[in-house]
Amino acid sequence: MSMTKKVAVILSGCGVYDGAEIHESVITLLRLDQRGAQVQCFAPNIAQMHVIDHLTGNEMPESRNVLVESARIARGDVKDIREARVEDFDALIVPGGFGAAKNLSDFAVKGADCTVNPDVLALAEAFAAACKPVGLICISPALAAKIYGPGVVCTIGNDADTAEAVVKMGGTHEECDVHDIVEDPQRKLVTTPAYMSAKTISEAASGIYKLVDRVLELTHE
Amino acid sequence: MSMTKKVAVILSGCGVYDGAEIHESVITLLRLDQRGAQVQCFAPNIAQMHVIDHLTGNEMPESRNVLVESARIARGDVKDIREARVEDFDALIVPGGFGAAKNLSDFAVKGADCTVNPDVLALAEAFAAACKPVGLICISPALAAKIYGPGVVCTIGNDADTAEAVVKMGGTHEECDVHDIVEDPQRKLVTTPAYMSAKTISEAASGIYKLVDRVLELTHE
Repeated sequence: MSMTKKVAVILSGCGVYDGAEIHESVITLLRLDQRGAQVQCFAPNIAQMHVIDHLTGNEMPESRNVLVESARIARGDVKDIREARVEDFDALIVPGGFGAAKNLSDFAVKGADCTVNPDVLALAEAFAAACKPVGLICISPALAAKIYGPGVVCTIGNDADTAEAVVKMGGTHEECDVHDIVEDPQRKLVTTPAYMSAKTISEAASGIYKLVDRVLELTHE
Repeated sequence: MSMTKKVAVILSGCGVYDGAEIHESVITLLRLDQRGAQVQCFAPNIAQMHVIDHLTGNEMPESRNVLVESARIARGDVKDIREARVEDFDALIVPGGFGAAKNLSDFAVKGADCTVNPDVLALAEAFAAACKPVGLICISPALAAKIYGPGVVCTIGNDADTAEAVVKMGGTHEECDVHDIVEDPQRKLVTTPAYMSAKTISEAASGIYKLVDRVLELTHE
């Protein structure tokens, strides 16, 4: 068994309002590298739900591809999620940003009635079935009940509406401080609020560091 | 005098091949926040030189605005560089990425014969004139001689061609390990190679952390 842990990271574009949250994604990659993990980024090869001007918050009359934009965060090193094989990895991490709720799923539009992109769902379900640890950051835990089924324990911080949707989908929501993580030990699922609650980048980093460290620890158990 | 240091950060888009290098930018923002600095991001309100598909490396038939794309890294909190006043800040930092050589200047095209965007140049020159510390990361030190004039000491790591261009512009180039910084004490200029040399994100982070820490120290001197 190799000492180097291999971690798949699912990106959902490049930018908090229509893609992967950039700070959360970079902090995840930084911590994984600092801890000696080997990382491969993946993203679905689909059009973004829409493109948001991050300066004004308005929709732009453009189309962008989730995989292509994710390559900005990954410095080119990102693969189509259809190429991801669970047997090649020890763990999976999904940063947040609206991309998780707009491109990886339609949670931003449909709430508790959402569906998850089939390739994203298949990969996450494969990690769950193999009992390999998964880390979901920020809004990504909104997908937990779809992946693990009823009873899964997770946090999206302390946002009442999102917590209600999580519960409606069958999840068990635990409030969580931005500096902390929630763990479902049976399922090896680790979640942290990050920018669901964070007011600063270092607040987001503190919870993400704990999440990454715990996910890597769980690969040994 | 306030204890909280105020730092202006100039972004140049969002993505290593046509904008600000995302990892370097986020790591800069993270370290500044961890050290208690108050940050304001700025970017020129101009079209990018071009748009690169970061998956293939090919140019895309699109136009994107440097300020609008920089807002992705800044989570919306970025201002037109024309609004930046040197008297409001204690220090200036410019992350790298091809955006520094394509949008903040035309170094990527013209090398030693480059010119710097007039608003970027005016702001950087104002920090130099006020003897306020400046940090230039990765390829950004290619602008140092244009800002400070002949004799300025800086590093772009150990890339021979870029170092030659720096010298041709009148700069004094010092080779530098990715984990380290070069300081021109007379000018309060701090530089680090980051992804000019870094093979991993944590290598880039180690030099950038040192740069940010030293720039903040220099605000006290």
